[in-house]
Amino acid sequence: MSLLRLFKELITKYTYAMRILVCFLFFIPSISISQPIIKADAQRLESRIMALSQFGIQTNGGVMRPGFGEEDIKARKYIIDLMKMLKLEVQIDAVGNIIGRREGTDSNLPFISFGSHIDAVPLGGKYDGNAGVITALECIELLNEQNLQTKHPLEVIVFVAEEDGLFGSTGMSGSLTDADLNFVCNSGKTVGQGINDVGGNSKELEKAIRKKGEILAFIELHIEQGATLYTEKLDIGVVEGIVGIEEWAITIEGMTNHAGTTPMNVRQDALVAASKLVVAINDAVNSVPGAQVGTVGTLNVEPNVSNVVPGKVSMTLEMRDLSKKKILSVYNKVKPQIKKIAKETRTKIQVKKDLSHGPALADKRLQNLIKSSAEELNFSNKLMPSGAGHDSQEMAKVAPMGMIFVPSKDGISHSPDEYTSPEDMAKGAAVLLRTILKIDKDGLQ
Amino acid sequence: MSLLRLFKELITKYTYAMRILVCFLFFIPSISISQPIIKADAQRLESRIMALSQFGIQTNGGVMRPGFGEEDIKARKYIIDLMKMLKLEVQIDAVGNIIGRREGTDSNLPFISFGSHIDAVPLGGKYDGNAGVITALECIELLNEQNLQTKHPLEVIVFVAEEDGLFGSTGMSGSLTDADLNFVCNSGKTVGQGINDVGGNSKELEKAIRKKGEILAFIELHIEQGATLYTEKLDIGVVEGIVGIEEWAITIEGMTNHAGTTPMNVRQDALVAASKLVVAINDAVNSVPGAQVGTVGTLNVEPNVSNVVPGKVSMTLEMRDLSKKKILSVYNKVKPQIKKIAKETRTKIQVKKDLSHGPALADKRLQNLIKSSAEELNFSNKLMPSGAGHDSQEMAKVAPMGMIFVPSKDGISHSPDEYTSPEDMAKGAAVLLRTILKIDKDGLQ
Repeated sequence: MSLLRLFKELITKYTYAMRILVCFLFFIPSISISQPIIKADAQRLESRIMALSQFGIQTNGGVMRPGFGEEDIKARKYIIDLMKMLKLEVQIDAVGNIIGRREGTDSNLPFISFGSHIDAVPLGGKYDGNAGVITALECIELLNEQNLQTKHPLEVIVFVAEEDGLFGSTGMSGSLTDADLNFVCNSGKTVGQGINDVGGNSKELEKAIRKKGEILAFIELHIEQGATLYTEKLDIGVVEGIVGIEEWAITIEGMTNHAGTTPMNVRQDALVAASKLVVAINDAVNSVPGAQVGTVGTLNVEPNVSNVVPGKVSMTLEMRDLSKKKILSVYNKVKPQIKKIAKETRTKIQVKKDLSHGPALADKRLQNLIKSSAEELNFSNKLMPSGAGHDSQEMAKVAPMGMIFVPSKDGISHSPDEYTSPEDMAKGAAVLLRTILKIDKDGLQ
Repeated sequence: MSLLRLFKELITKYTYAMRILVCFLFFIPSISISQPIIKADAQRLESRIMALSQFGIQTNGGVMRPGFGEEDIKARKYIIDLMKMLKLEVQIDAVGNIIGRREGTDSNLPFISFGSHIDAVPLGGKYDGNAGVITALECIELLNEQNLQTKHPLEVIVFVAEEDGLFGSTGMSGSLTDADLNFVCNSGKTVGQGINDVGGNSKELEKAIRKKGEILAFIELHIEQGATLYTEKLDIGVVEGIVGIEEWAITIEGMTNHAGTTPMNVRQDALVAASKLVVAINDAVNSVPGAQVGTVGTLNVEPNVSNVVPGKVSMTLEMRDLSKKKILSVYNKVKPQIKKIAKETRTKIQVKKDLSHGPALADKRLQNLIKSSAEELNFSNKLMPSGAGHDSQEMAKVAPMGMIFVPSKDGISHSPDEYTSPEDMAKGAAVLLRTILKIDKDGLQ
């Protein structure tokens, strides 16, 4: 039997078996690589981060670019030009957010939205926010390069004035109040004035509000701003949610007195009381397992003179966790200590609740899609909370939300020393694009 | 036997016994009231305190009169005029101290000197220093009224710029250095300029130095500046000495970090470390019996922002006691705690010795004379250290030194609320005068 004959016979005889085999061979890749592997361009990301960093007052490697300010407006123009180059249809919404849209094949479908912010804290770095915007645009560029058109329309959002208080995203979620318009930002402008200066319209804020269902999913890539990924040498953080924050203002009143002439047993030393309280708070936060954090970040002594017994101390306490109940249970451990310390030190301790932001949980389906995208790309990853606040927490009010973290060198952020490597940004961009394509293909599952 | 005869017989027979009896009858008062009781005029003291307080910027009941300043110069003129009215021979020494002298019957004898200062801290009161000067002049007025002339020459000294750093008395003790002349005082003037402005001569400072033996005793009356006499309802404090002060500057370096993104177990929170140290210091000072005091009076947090883990804390520690050995033994209890806390909190704690002033003990004989004077005048009294610094500590370098404390209402000083009643000042003046007369009569015994 010639080889040809044998082959013909096999085809005839085992047609069904062959068909199954052929199907199987095609089926394997359709499971494991349902999406083609698309790599992001690390060099392009890095050069755009550098280009963007030129718009801002240069501060020893960092950038000063307060939202709504002159430098912010220049940086926004750079982004708008880049969006136009990438053929996005650009608009400024009523709050001043920049929105760049790319049509999908089905205009009835909701948006898949992604983005971050480009404004910076006064002594900030080049990556906080910026990395999220530049990787979002990289996704568009990669889609353009691959001639891929999604079913869903895509939307790159550049939120305005994040660092001053998430003003762009609160505008989209409908949480921005008229009182907020009078808030004075780092730029020196009020929110109201700033919105108008960047092309928004502070009198038509309601136009910026996004309806539920209008956005299928919102995803933000951001630098971690903590050291977990960097220390554990991981590529991607799959964010479980943004922690809630509870803040208290604490005032301790003792008695100002001469440090030489006031015997120890009659002192009412406000700083001794405050110190006992800081230690008690730290002990309480550490007394239960979990990722909760508690911080006394400010402490001011009056009169703060070396030879005077301190008469007054003001301090702030903030606690964060993905569960508000957990935060309050830790605080309840502090409460009896406050009473005890006030008695011991003959001082008066007053605690005033200052601020309460509930946690914003990431959509479980989005967490799974981000995680599987990272794994299919062979990037190590970890589920983790975001300890910092982000525009995503506001977007979670109007759409399912997900976040992708990339490593921050030494966990440093809000500092000129902020750094994320081009390779880490490229990994993040690839995970972001892969997640978008998965949602586009199969929806949120 | 007629009565006359009996009397004659008794005289003849019991001559020696009678002589002893007569001597005894005269001897009792010579022990118990060797000095006549001389009361000071409370009203006069009060009205002069009020008159003096007019020279100074009025601050809600207090007086702003920095040494060497314009207001100080006006107040000095008031004192000089008062001295002249009291027939004192007035001179300004090379450092700018005002010296008012009253001749004694024996010009070969050393001076009995007493006085205090009239300059005030920026937000000071009417009594600190002033009470010592006005009571000293009251003693002169009482001697004039009683037509009493002492054997020893008397000297009322009004020290210049006490609150800026005991400059008048360091000039007299020879401790004033050329470098001190460049020190900028609360008045805005340098010590050098100030000295010349008040009639001294900064180029002939050595002329102000008092030789040992030139002053038999120096006594300063001062308000207590603490609450001990006032709380315990006592009239007079017999000062055992002026405590020594040891000062340290402490710097704690941790790591500034995001309060949301930095897990508790990797934090290097400089404020938690500082708080543990403040508590440890307070515990150490309280762990041994005695009158020692220890104070962390200043504490500065960096960056002192509510949502940032504190990266750096600077604080000062000062400890005071009549024994330097005691201070150092307490500090030695703190030392191992510093090491332990630095390790626990992953911070670096640096301690720098800043200042060391040895204690100045009051002359035991003077303490006894002040105490017996108070008791003979039926004034309740107590031996006590001075926790505050005074010109007396410098004068102790050139003469036996004693101090008389009068009560401060609620222990308040360096404040517009500073108050000592006219009656308490009068009691102090009476003790001062009685002590001077005792020294004059019998020397230091």
